[in-house]
Amino acid sequence: MPLTLCFDADDTLWHNEDMFADAHARFATILGRYHEREVIERELYATEMRNLRLYGYGVKGFALSALETAVRITGDTLSSREVSEVIALAQSMLRHPVVLLPGVAEVVPALAARHPLTLLTKGDLHDQERKLRDSGLGSHFARYDVIAEKDTATYRRVLEQWSLKPEDFVMIGNSLRSDILPVLELGGRAVWIPYPLTWQHERAEPPTGNPRFTKLESIAELPAYLSTLVL
Amino acid sequence: MPLTLCFDADDTLWHNEDMFADAHARFATILGRYHEREVIERELYATEMRNLRLYGYGVKGFALSALETAVRITGDTLSSREVSEVIALAQSMLRHPVVLLPGVAEVVPALAARHPLTLLTKGDLHDQERKLRDSGLGSHFARYDVIAEKDTATYRRVLEQWSLKPEDFVMIGNSLRSDILPVLELGGRAVWIPYPLTWQHERAEPPTGNPRFTKLESIAELPAYLSTLVL
Repeated sequence: MPLTLCFDADDTLWHNEDMFADAHARFATILGRYHEREVIERELYATEMRNLRLYGYGVKGFALSALETAVRITGDTLSSREVSEVIALAQSMLRHPVVLLPGVAEVVPALAARHPLTLLTKGDLHDQERKLRDSGLGSHFARYDVIAEKDTATYRRVLEQWSLKPEDFVMIGNSLRSDILPVLELGGRAVWIPYPLTWQHERAEPPTGNPRFTKLESIAELPAYLSTLVL
Repeated sequence: MPLTLCFDADDTLWHNEDMFADAHARFATILGRYHEREVIERELYATEMRNLRLYGYGVKGFALSALETAVRITGDTLSSREVSEVIALAQSMLRHPVVLLPGVAEVVPALAARHPLTLLTKGDLHDQERKLRDSGLGSHFARYDVIAEKDTATYRRVLEQWSLKPEDFVMIGNSLRSDILPVLELGGRAVWIPYPLTWQHERAEPPTGNPRFTKLESIAELPAYLSTLVL
């Protein structure tokens, strides 16, 4: 049986974190008359972390945390225009074009001819489905799921639902915390392809000495790596 | 093979629309110094419909649409305090206790002993998983999925993922538009249990003369109905 490959989406197949980084910067500009950029970004991150259990991941939660931060740090002098600008920022993020990472458009169809491909992403269901549709890659994935949190318990449930054993499963993603560590813990293989930017919340230490783990520089290296695995 | 039962969640297993109705009323109170309640509710509904493709269903999209409406109809005099109140309203909705509908706590476990039970709901993934957890019903469902839109294409995909044939599938829900009509179209059975409130967007005409369709007054009637089906 060929290995089933499972791709993360944001920052593995297409750019995402750069859009969030731009949005944080834009938010700091909107509130630039009140505070230094550094203060605004720190307050926003603190609000996002406090609300993560309530909102989950995604643009809408970001926008609500941004508005909450804005009210708090402007000493109640926030203007309607500033509220509007934050809402417009969120809407532009939800309409943001999907830009594939280098190599994805060639590698994904090529691998789909040799492996069952799946996709597993966290975040906002509605927005992730929109991006998968806009990516043009949807037809290459036999299954996909959007999950609320990528932890060991959730990977276990998904593997069970998909009738897959961990040893037949290779996760490919950019986040050590969400894509790599929980899959290794379950006994699966994991390929880490770092993205230039990593959200503070997703940072973790790479595993050492685990033969089921590898790090690649780009998705373009993935076919060669897979061909080295004894099946 | 026993029929697989698939339950909708909001307003089928637990109360939901009453919370949204209360939230709309509360929003009208927050902005009460600007407009009549009727005007505010009409403007909010129009904003929600315009943003539905962008935000999808759920509390966070509601909150962003409410804030957008607030900015628009207050002629740019919206105060920080009013913004805060809308955000606090959204957060209270996301923390709202799950209150099961009458009969659910008895009927669901009883049916789980005789049928594979599944759950299919739309809305915000993170919030729906929280409610399923808080409901205490999670262990009775063999599978569940949160989907972005309950249309024929999505039901077809879910049935395929769950390896189910439409003729072995019974959907139980309160929304004609989302739970009943698409399942009947695919050849499945559908049990409509109306909830006292129906969101304007979900309204539709009940089907007539379809032997695979029935309407019940309460989930308590479901076991008796299922026992009349020739298996």
